[in-house]
Amino acid sequence: MEAYKQTIRQYIRTHEREAVALLQRLTAERSVSGAEKRAQQIVIEQLQDMNLEVDVWEPAREELEHHPYFISARPDFHGSPNVVGILRGVGGGRSMIVNGHIDVVPEGERKQWTQDPYGGKVENGRVYGRGTTDMKGGNTALLLALEAIRHSGISLKGDVYFQSVIEEESGGAGTLSAILRGYKADGVIIPEPTNMKLFVKQQGSMWFRAKVKGRVAHGGTRYEGVSAIEKSMLVLEHIRDLEQLRNSRIMDPLYAGIPIPIPINVGTIQGGTWPSSVADLVILEGRFGVAPHERMEDAQQEFMEWLQALSLQDEWFAAHPVEVEWFGARWVPGSIEAEHELVQMLRRNFQLVAAQEPIMEAAPWGTDGGLFTQIANIPMIVFGPGETKVAHYPDEYIEIEKLLLAAEIIACTLLDWCGVHLEEEHGGK
Amino acid sequence: MEAYKQTIRQYIRTHEREAVALLQRLTAERSVSGAEKRAQQIVIEQLQDMNLEVDVWEPAREELEHHPYFISARPDFHGSPNVVGILRGVGGGRSMIVNGHIDVVPEGERKQWTQDPYGGKVENGRVYGRGTTDMKGGNTALLLALEAIRHSGISLKGDVYFQSVIEEESGGAGTLSAILRGYKADGVIIPEPTNMKLFVKQQGSMWFRAKVKGRVAHGGTRYEGVSAIEKSMLVLEHIRDLEQLRNSRIMDPLYAGIPIPIPINVGTIQGGTWPSSVADLVILEGRFGVAPHERMEDAQQEFMEWLQALSLQDEWFAAHPVEVEWFGARWVPGSIEAEHELVQMLRRNFQLVAAQEPIMEAAPWGTDGGLFTQIANIPMIVFGPGETKVAHYPDEYIEIEKLLLAAEIIACTLLDWCGVHLEEEHGGK
Repeated sequence: MEAYKQTIRQYIRTHEREAVALLQRLTAERSVSGAEKRAQQIVIEQLQDMNLEVDVWEPAREELEHHPYFISARPDFHGSPNVVGILRGVGGGRSMIVNGHIDVVPEGERKQWTQDPYGGKVENGRVYGRGTTDMKGGNTALLLALEAIRHSGISLKGDVYFQSVIEEESGGAGTLSAILRGYKADGVIIPEPTNMKLFVKQQGSMWFRAKVKGRVAHGGTRYEGVSAIEKSMLVLEHIRDLEQLRNSRIMDPLYAGIPIPIPINVGTIQGGTWPSSVADLVILEGRFGVAPHERMEDAQQEFMEWLQALSLQDEWFAAHPVEVEWFGARWVPGSIEAEHELVQMLRRNFQLVAAQEPIMEAAPWGTDGGLFTQIANIPMIVFGPGETKVAHYPDEYIEIEKLLLAAEIIACTLLDWCGVHLEEEHGGK
Repeated sequence: MEAYKQTIRQYIRTHEREAVALLQRLTAERSVSGAEKRAQQIVIEQLQDMNLEVDVWEPAREELEHHPYFISARPDFHGSPNVVGILRGVGGGRSMIVNGHIDVVPEGERKQWTQDPYGGKVENGRVYGRGTTDMKGGNTALLLALEAIRHSGISLKGDVYFQSVIEEESGGAGTLSAILRGYKADGVIIPEPTNMKLFVKQQGSMWFRAKVKGRVAHGGTRYEGVSAIEKSMLVLEHIRDLEQLRNSRIMDPLYAGIPIPIPINVGTIQGGTWPSSVADLVILEGRFGVAPHERMEDAQQEFMEWLQALSLQDEWFAAHPVEVEWFGARWVPGSIEAEHELVQMLRRNFQLVAAQEPIMEAAPWGTDGGLFTQIANIPMIVFGPGETKVAHYPDEYIEIEKLLLAAEIIACTLLDWCGVHLEEEHGGK
């Protein structure tokens, strides 16, 4: 087995230039939600070059929209294909899904970038551009890992399903569609940007909108009205208390160094229409963090009951309860035991390749991975070469060395997980 | 004198129909800011019919804009004339300005009206429509009072200046322009809607905008940022403390029954751009109540110093102070001693005409009157037939009987204040 891993290493180290060129081509395509097609075409060509079975389809909204975990603002997914490439094993081994999303968030204000967001410039060992870290760099590592296996003449026993999905940044409809299409495996690796740490738990999250009511009056006689702005101060305090309560339950030592493992972030506030009137409505929008083992539905239930209890503090809320709706984005949390063989196998290959102990951490954000664990009950781990701190930011980049290391660690893990079909065995049949 | 007042009464009581028709014509013109011209044309015709000297001019922004009390969002006042009609006295008496604004606030959502806002329908002794109470009904009472004097063959000793001004609802540029044009007198009556009460004090007010700063971060790691929404909770509490302090200083028994004589109303709040980001900016807009005797500048100063003191509570504010600007509308407060002859004269005529004691009160809102007292140092009282509770609201109306009573009380007060030139005196010259 060590010899195979040496071959893998050699392939990867001699194909750095090609890997960078591929990442640059992917980066050049501005694959924001609705515009993924050209980037997916590049992926398809890569898979075809490897002679993999390729499955390309546009998710059908009507097949997804009744699923409780479906969320999307798009009316349909025309022009936005999912792509799966299958490296079929010879049989007798465990299978693995390696999953990465092809969609990127918009680049934002151009003038905040010092680099061309779609230029893919190489500087100081980094490739710059929107999506390099989140997560075309991770996808490139996956493709490089598969190529290294393929071109090294190694036959795996188990199947490997490479998934290049749409819509991760907008709620996960792409991965949901892949699961509902029937793809399953014994394990999942998602190379989202963990900066080479093993993220064994991921915070889930969902967006809420809370409407706080008041009663209008003229500002000069404001005591004749009820200010929704004043009432929203009570609501904000009450939400902060819930955040404290929910976080006090998190005992996992992985969260020991994290001030607020599952934050409730009220991100926007908007209320009132006129400076000299009493505001009769304030709308709060926020992100509700969900614990790795928690069900989304239970978290929603707790929030709504908590807000109902405001009426015990202030009878205004008895007659005018805060209205809550869940909208926009949602990421299901994920979790795997640190002792799980998938984690330990990845860990050993990390030690082998990087010659050090990997850091295990709990992620402050969710990925599509939660869908695999919560819907399909597949063990899943997040491990990738990008860095959260530059994801969604101007001058996003990825370090080429980390991309190569990740490719090697994942390739070696695939050998161990799926098993290598040895020539001798083959010959002996 | 009693005979003259009887003549006045008779004139007014026999011209109810004409007064209502005039109010209907004025109401039919939607004289919102920038569209006052046609309503002013009706006023001009009325003044010309009475053979008054008429002065019509468009305020020149360049002459106003350096005045500390000037405020307007308009680039100019083209098409928005001020109108003054002068009932010249024969000499030897006190002069009076009677002032009313011709501009109205927009009607708002039509479907909230059961009446046509510009129809002027008469029903149950009321005339309905936008501006009937605020304050075309008051203006009609003034014109009726002048007509009653004019057509009764009464000569006053002092001059009466009837002013129909623009822009009261947007900060008082019309009245400011009239003052700067040189109009002055020994007293001012403004028939804003007091529901027949004598408003001897008026709360001033001005609009502020406060910017509360934070530091952006991802909602999943919100502890890495500083929420401007959380910081704005401290700011709102701090503003409430200032409101309490400022109101604790108001000792005037006129305010005994008013819960908050000079409120600070935060009317709008807006902050954050994304539910799952930490908000880095919250903007509060509000109306700052100013006490009748207070200078606007002193009130501003107190607010700004108070907000600076937030840094003592939370060092975030030391490095990121709340920024305050004063914008939009402003009404200067007004005040007159209850013992002042103008008040007492109006009171006696109220007793005479209405056969009861008038109610004296402090107004929760300012008028253009504050400009007369604070800039021109002219004693001023607010007294009119409309009702605050329907001003700026759907289905605004005025009671015709109150309009007629106000016209009679004001006409009689003009006779007393300016003095009547008796025929015998005239003959004796």
